[in-house]
Amino acid sequence: VSQHISLFFLFMHLQLIGSGAAAQVVTSRGTHGNYLTIQLGSALGAVFGIFVARGVSGAHLNPVYSLSLCVLGRHPWKKLPLYSLSHLVGAFLGAATVYLQYYDAIQTFSGGELLVAGPNATAGIFCSYPADHLSFWGGLVDQVVATALFLLCCVALEDQRNGPLPDGLHPVLVGALILTMGVSMGSNCGFPLNPARDLGPRLFTFVAGWGEEVFKAGGGWWWVPIVAPFVGGLLGTVTYELLIEAHHQTTPQSPQQEQEAVELEEVVVDSGNNR
Amino acid sequence: VSQHISLFFLFMHLQLIGSGAAAQVVTSRGTHGNYLTIQLGSALGAVFGIFVARGVSGAHLNPVYSLSLCVLGRHPWKKLPLYSLSHLVGAFLGAATVYLQYYDAIQTFSGGELLVAGPNATAGIFCSYPADHLSFWGGLVDQVVATALFLLCCVALEDQRNGPLPDGLHPVLVGALILTMGVSMGSNCGFPLNPARDLGPRLFTFVAGWGEEVFKAGGGWWWVPIVAPFVGGLLGTVTYELLIEAHHQTTPQSPQQEQEAVELEEVVVDSGNNR
Amino acid sequence: VSQHISLFFLFMHLQLIGSGAAAQVVTSRGTHGNYLTIQLGSALGAVFGIFVARGVSGAHLNPVYSLSLCVLGRHPWKKLPLYSLSHLVGAFLGAATVYLQYYDAIQTFSGGELLVAGPNATAGIFCSYPADHLSFWGGLVDQVVATALFLLCCVALEDQRNGPLPDGLHPVLVGALILTMGVSMGSNCGFPLNPARDLGPRLFTFVAGWGEEVFKAGGGWWWVPIVAPFVGGLLGTVTYELLIEAHHQTTPQSPQQEQEAVELEEVVVDSGNNR
Amino acid sequence: VSQHISLFFLFMHLQLIGSGAAAQVVTSRGTHGNYLTIQLGSALGAVFGIFVARGVSGAHLNPVYSLSLCVLGRHPWKKLPLYSLSHLVGAFLGAATVYLQYYDAIQTFSGGELLVAGPNATAGIFCSYPADHLSFWGGLVDQVVATALFLLCCVALEDQRNGPLPDGLHPVLVGALILTMGVSMGSNCGFPLNPARDLGPRLFTFVAGWGEEVFKAGGGWWWVPIVAPFVGGLLGTVTYELLIEAHHQTTPQSPQQEQEAVELEEVVVDSGNNR
Repeated sequence: VSQHISLFFLFMHLQLIGSGAAAQVVTSRGTHGNYLTIQLGSALGAVFGIFVARGVSGAHLNPVYSLSLCVLGRHPWKKLPLYSLSHLVGAFLGAATVYLQYYDAIQTFSGGELLVAGPNATAGIFCSYPADHLSFWGGLVDQVVATALFLLCCVALEDQRNGPLPDGLHPVLVGALILTMGVSMGSNCGFPLNPARDLGPRLFTFVAGWGEEVFKAGGGWWWVPIVAPFVGGLLGTVTYELLIEAHHQTTPQSPQQEQEAVELEEVVVDSGNNR
Repeated sequence: VSQHISLFFLFMHLQLIGSGAAAQVVTSRGTHGNYLTIQLGSALGAVFGIFVARGVSGAHLNPVYSLSLCVLGRHPWKKLPLYSLSHLVGAFLGAATVYLQYYDAIQTFSGGELLVAGPNATAGIFCSYPADHLSFWGGLVDQVVATALFLLCCVALEDQRNGPLPDGLHPVLVGALILTMGVSMGSNCGFPLNPARDLGPRLFTFVAGWGEEVFKAGGGWWWVPIVAPFVGGLLGTVTYELLIEAHHQTTPQSPQQEQEAVELEEVVVDSGNNR
Repeated sequence: VSQHISLFFLFMHLQLIGSGAAAQVVTSRGTHGNYLTIQLGSALGAVFGIFVARGVSGAHLNPVYSLSLCVLGRHPWKKLPLYSLSHLVGAFLGAATVYLQYYDAIQTFSGGELLVAGPNATAGIFCSYPADHLSFWGGLVDQVVATALFLLCCVALEDQRNGPLPDGLHPVLVGALILTMGVSMGSNCGFPLNPARDLGPRLFTFVAGWGEEVFKAGGGWWWVPIVAPFVGGLLGTVTYELLIEAHHQTTPQSPQQEQEAVELEEVVVDSGNNR
Repeated sequence: VSQHISLFFLFMHLQLIGSGAAAQVVTSRGTHGNYLTIQLGSALGAVFGIFVARGVSGAHLNPVYSLSLCVLGRHPWKKLPLYSLSHLVGAFLGAATVYLQYYDAIQTFSGGELLVAGPNATAGIFCSYPADHLSFWGGLVDQVVATALFLLCCVALEDQRNGPLPDGLHPVLVGALILTMGVSMGSNCGFPLNPARDLGPRLFTFVAGWGEEVFKAGGGWWWVPIVAPFVGGLLGTVTYELLIEAHHQTTPQSPQQEQEAVELEEVVVDSGNNR
């Protein structure tokens, strides 16, 4: 239970801080931030989400990451549905909190109309929509490439055999990685990368008054940031395992190091089983 | 005494650097900085305030934090009033120093009139005022939510059982947390979050020539950033204790770890009692 | 083989993230980033490229760096050609991936015409071109000075005798160094600094439709960012060796430290020989 | 000798990177950077200057810092003149390198006229000039306050008894401190803070063609950033010693800690004496 609470918190932070940054820029029409501050908000939301949750549930920042661990046999499959549900509920309630906090600002900005497109649109505060230039296939490619890169780097940062990290640097680097995505792969469709963080807030905007347009917009865009990240995430994880980690395993290590590595993985799996 | 001096310094830094950044942007009409540099100033003010004071008084960055520790029984109640006074005096004198340093710039910018509202307003350099769109309840909600998130993260960063941090990273992360607040929750009323850092400079502007308008503006806004942060701070601290830390305590630890954790807390409480 | 794969990945990341950031800013006409986000992209591409590759091939971020190690006798000459080829192929394929990911955006932006110069030019997304004001000699000087500084700092960061770095901080500092170059030496010709990262993507644009103009532009600029960095890199490395490191060697050290330093270098050379 | 060479390098970096960032923004008329990138350049110049020099000469980033150490009896007075000369020559040659690297850009920007004031002024790339609004006394106050804060924080970061820092974090924090100054105290006269970094480049511009106007401008401003920083620096250092460090010395420590602290200081003084 505690793990689900902590994942719930992680996603609430992720959504609250990331979407808050977008709400601030949109509703102030750019006077209180710009594209870079939105990216910083997404990154810092991840940093502090992980710092809050890391002691209890580890850094399961993304259902795609959890799925990848299951595929690799490092996480039990039966935990995946409840994990994903915690992600989804956390992101949903994070979006609700952003709406509560920016209620006056959103009402004033939009003149009371909750719109998905046009100059007074506010739905983009909460979840991703494709840019006008983006084709359907372009969107799929963008999200597969971006999530593959994202997961490849996530797995590399976690890989103790690839090189150690000081305690406390890991969450900061994950934040830097999200900033990287925003800076280099954000203009096509806003780097969703995360099915739960995209679907949860979309469901919230659906019930909160933006209506079914949130699912219809962009030619039914909504399912692309759910499906494509899983494909890209698996691609990135498997690429890392085959091309980088395979070479660690053939590298002779001292018995002590091997032992440590094994114990480390056991702890991770364990914490997945026993709580 | 030394603790109060060090807290006084911490708040002087906080105010001096944070308000200096605002003074620079306001009086240069945006040519020497922008919204992001003001947020960076607030964050870096906290970083170096803590680096200067950490050896003597620890990171009592915020009266809300001190109060939360008292409520949790980790800090003696009787020290709270003097601590808060040190905070207040430090912030007051920090504001005075900013005015001294930017005296020429403020006079030139404002044509010699010290105003709270309008295009030549300069009171916002020193303390928070609500945006035009913000209702009274919206302001309360904003500050309760923001301070709850802020304190929840502060307590998580301090919690040795949630995961260790390298020496020297803690002040940097507190700065990053303040940047997070500015980036994602700053456009409603400028993320005061801190009663002493808001009231001290407001008192300074009151006596320095901005007059009683500093208390009347925003429909008597001044008490919201004093009361709401205490409510939000307690909410955030208690949420962390119940939902995250509770699970650490039930997690079996090695006796040695437990011992260390206990000693650590004793040192903290101790340093509160003996100096 | 694994080393070449990992170098290939390093350069793919470098190119993918760095050029992605440029593609985003160019094709969004500055609404989704600015000059600083391009520099951040270049820096963060290096950070995560090194994090992915560091366990297998070390931080051979730049053929200039590999060459300098060869000249200093710390890396076998015979490995240089294959290393450089891995760099080149990685950068080529990274550029191809950026084109794939931004295909819709580049087509919409340029109206379907792939141009090297003018307001709708897109070749600058992938490799360097000189600014209008830059003379031939000015470009040579710029790249010799910039690469000399870059390599001098790279070698200083690697030098364990100059002062230790915590694990995990080295890649971040290399990223900060690239940001430094972009912030202070980027406006003349876009701080290429790296022959492989410039030539690989230039070859890609040549075959992908920008045509031979990519070699003709800027008065045949293309070979300057290949030759000048080697000159500058050697200059910087030799300067460091003569003026800084020489003094470490004459400084008496404890025998244990000396031993460690020697072992360290052996490991580096070793990893170059045996995989 | 090696110490002087390393200090020379430190200042050359400081000047080269800091002024390079300014040259880039000025000559590109803001298209290749903005006020924040200039501040980043100053900060990063210090970071990598220290990383290059730290092994040989330590972090004598500023003659004001060296002087403060002399006054506190921690550095031999007789070394001060030569140290300051190394600083000055390094900064002079750094400025010359920036002029060389940006020669084409400066000529194009200024139409060949090297001016100290007006829309095509380029002297501000190299050293500080006061803003139009700044009075003589305002400038003195600005530099005394800013350097006092700067040195107080520098000394706090160096003070092992105030709290430890991981190896490698110190140079980064000094950079962050310079960024702090730029963000919060830069609009009056560009945060010189450093007599050598201001006078050296001013001498260069004097001989390189900007002429005696560099000493006449701002009502003979040139000596303020030389004298005021020494006053402010001493003020900041003494304040720290009296109000913060005094309390460390009265705090009972374990004998081992005391011993370590003493040894540490001896090493520092030693390295000042023997090389």
